[in-house]
Amino acid sequence: MSVVAALGFESAGVAAGIKRSGGLDLALVVNRGPLQHAAAVFTSNRAKANPVLWSQQVVADGRVCAIVLNSGGANCFTGAEGFQTTHATAEEAALALGVSAGDVLVCSTGLIGEQLPRERVLAGVRAAVAALSAHDENAASAILTTDTHAKTAVARGAGWTIGGMAKGAGMLAPGLATMLVVLTTDAVLEPAELDAALRAATRVSFDRLDSDGCMSTNDQVSLLASGASGVRPDVAEFRHALVEVCTDLAVQLQGDAEGASHDIRIEVVGAASEDDAVEVGRAVARSNLFKAAVFGNDPNWGRVLAAIGTTSAEFDPYAVDVSMNGVRVCAAGGPDRPREEVDLTPRAVDVLIDLKAGAEAATIYTNDLTHDYVHENSAYSS
Amino acid sequence: MSVVAALGFESAGVAAGIKRSGGLDLALVVNRGPLQHAAAVFTSNRAKANPVLWSQQVVADGRVCAIVLNSGGANCFTGAEGFQTTHATAEEAALALGVSAGDVLVCSTGLIGEQLPRERVLAGVRAAVAALSAHDENAASAILTTDTHAKTAVARGAGWTIGGMAKGAGMLAPGLATMLVVLTTDAVLEPAELDAALRAATRVSFDRLDSDGCMSTNDQVSLLASGASGVRPDVAEFRHALVEVCTDLAVQLQGDAEGASHDIRIEVVGAASEDDAVEVGRAVARSNLFKAAVFGNDPNWGRVLAAIGTTSAEFDPYAVDVSMNGVRVCAAGGPDRPREEVDLTPRAVDVLIDLKAGAEAATIYTNDLTHDYVHENSAYSS
Repeated sequence: MSVVAALGFESAGVAAGIKRSGGLDLALVVNRGPLQHAAAVFTSNRAKANPVLWSQQVVADGRVCAIVLNSGGANCFTGAEGFQTTHATAEEAALALGVSAGDVLVCSTGLIGEQLPRERVLAGVRAAVAALSAHDENAASAILTTDTHAKTAVARGAGWTIGGMAKGAGMLAPGLATMLVVLTTDAVLEPAELDAALRAATRVSFDRLDSDGCMSTNDQVSLLASGASGVRPDVAEFRHALVEVCTDLAVQLQGDAEGASHDIRIEVVGAASEDDAVEVGRAVARSNLFKAAVFGNDPNWGRVLAAIGTTSAEFDPYAVDVSMNGVRVCAAGGPDRPREEVDLTPRAVDVLIDLKAGAEAATIYTNDLTHDYVHENSAYSS
Repeated sequence: MSVVAALGFESAGVAAGIKRSGGLDLALVVNRGPLQHAAAVFTSNRAKANPVLWSQQVVADGRVCAIVLNSGGANCFTGAEGFQTTHATAEEAALALGVSAGDVLVCSTGLIGEQLPRERVLAGVRAAVAALSAHDENAASAILTTDTHAKTAVARGAGWTIGGMAKGAGMLAPGLATMLVVLTTDAVLEPAELDAALRAATRVSFDRLDSDGCMSTNDQVSLLASGASGVRPDVAEFRHALVEVCTDLAVQLQGDAEGASHDIRIEVVGAASEDDAVEVGRAVARSNLFKAAVFGNDPNWGRVLAAIGTTSAEFDPYAVDVSMNGVRVCAAGGPDRPREEVDLTPRAVDVLIDLKAGAEAATIYTNDLTHDYVHENSAYSS
């Protein structure tokens, strides 16, 4: 149960023949109402895929009836022909569902720069409409690319539910087709409330996942609300539950990141501002040398400090403390406990950085840099 | 011949026992004058090693008599004890040479967060002074860490010479001890002229080398002028020759980058400004996905465009052209020639990006992301 855990939703996942493997590659999620409210956030990459350009227009009025997602091709840098494929996909779904194409979101994931097989996509849409079910288990699988398993999450409030599914092997899967997320709820909320809650939740969850520093052209997180529970939730409670679902999915994405052998949690405390904490965590998360050291189970805190030094965050290099898996290896910018005391063999690695510059904090989630990451991203072409 | 190619200079390289391997690990370069003019540029990392903190003070008055460089330890995040080691190193050289310690630069390279063996360093300084020679060939070898060979360059003008030596396996070698460069000239130039020429030259050479996106705590490029030729050069000619020597050394660093199997030259043209061109080139150079694709001989231009999309440079994603090794694989943001026509098997890879937004250009030098890079940076500890 994922996107259909909330009342008012049906979904389907079918094999449309887009992927050469013949596996599930097209998903459809339909909001049967009574409300069809929605919000969505998109990649900030200025090179946006055709489905992103389309979906930004669709969601502008806060009304969405359905969302079509395909794996097997990103439909990015595919020009006018690619945009027409996205448009035709929405039209096909709209026709079969009896709604307006302007209320159908589209997401694509896969290799950049190649056209989708349009007729197969359209036939897949028709097959998905025919397969729609409130008990569907296939949609979350049909959106996967190099992911090794489906990722779903559910949170329940007082009479309402949030469900979600996600794909993405880190921030960026091969071919630059990456994180797609669909969240559904049967709570009664206005589009503006959904939008504010979604932005607040993604800011502290998906935006803090930085597996390989590469930003996708296709990222899209959509939140659809059916109002089918008839319950208007406490907005603070709803927001809290949404953060929970988003963080759950983000951590699942981290755990399935391409080639990763460690899930690294970088907690930055003692920052002068939350922005400083995020900047520091992200700089460490993007240091190939730090990430390669973690792969080698080497608690190389010098690489942590060198990464911090590249930021504009407020800190004194000779005040900073760094702990790795509970052992403070660096105190006040100098050696503390011996490196040998740190055990980095577990998959989970906790890095705690105290900037000693204030009271703000943030946590960034990343992965190590491994032979398998290099292999998957150098050998991928299908 | 490297730093002693210019008149007025002597150098030496000795095995001081700092490296466990027992190899050459301490270099000394002495300017015998008559002038002892100098300029230097340092890492912009805010976490600066002790020798950087020391050398910034030394060069402030534009006068430098000697420079001591050690491999086998970065002397970074080693606190007051580490700073005292740097100070003692300068004092020891000054005593033996009959100059002021305040005119002795110090550079260190190796692992961060460990103290240097001070007595061995000081004994090494004495041995180096005893070994000084105007025909020395060892200094360039004594500064190497994971480099596989020494890197030197010489340029000659009308009666004057510039010599140089460099170490560094990309922008960042294991343990974060990276690029050290010493340049010498016998031309007659004032410190302010040297400073301006050095900043102009490093801006378009070393600053455009971005092997792995990681910024060192120890980077230092020093330029010493002896005036021993008695020739005051045409300043424009001198600047041109200095750029030539710096670019030569930068390309040698690129060619010896850790684990690299491709040397990638990213030429950005048609930019609205030089800054835009540099930002775009650097964003592509820092994309692990692009770099892993090149390792796999995969002309994945979608990863180039996705990286460009993360910048603030002026461009229209649907105007950009991208060529790889002479084949235009992307025209106006869409597929052009088939990927199969691109041969990425040679070590040299040329990526040409035309932003179609102006007339400015810049070239960034980088390397691919390989299994060997991950191996060297996860297994390194000595």
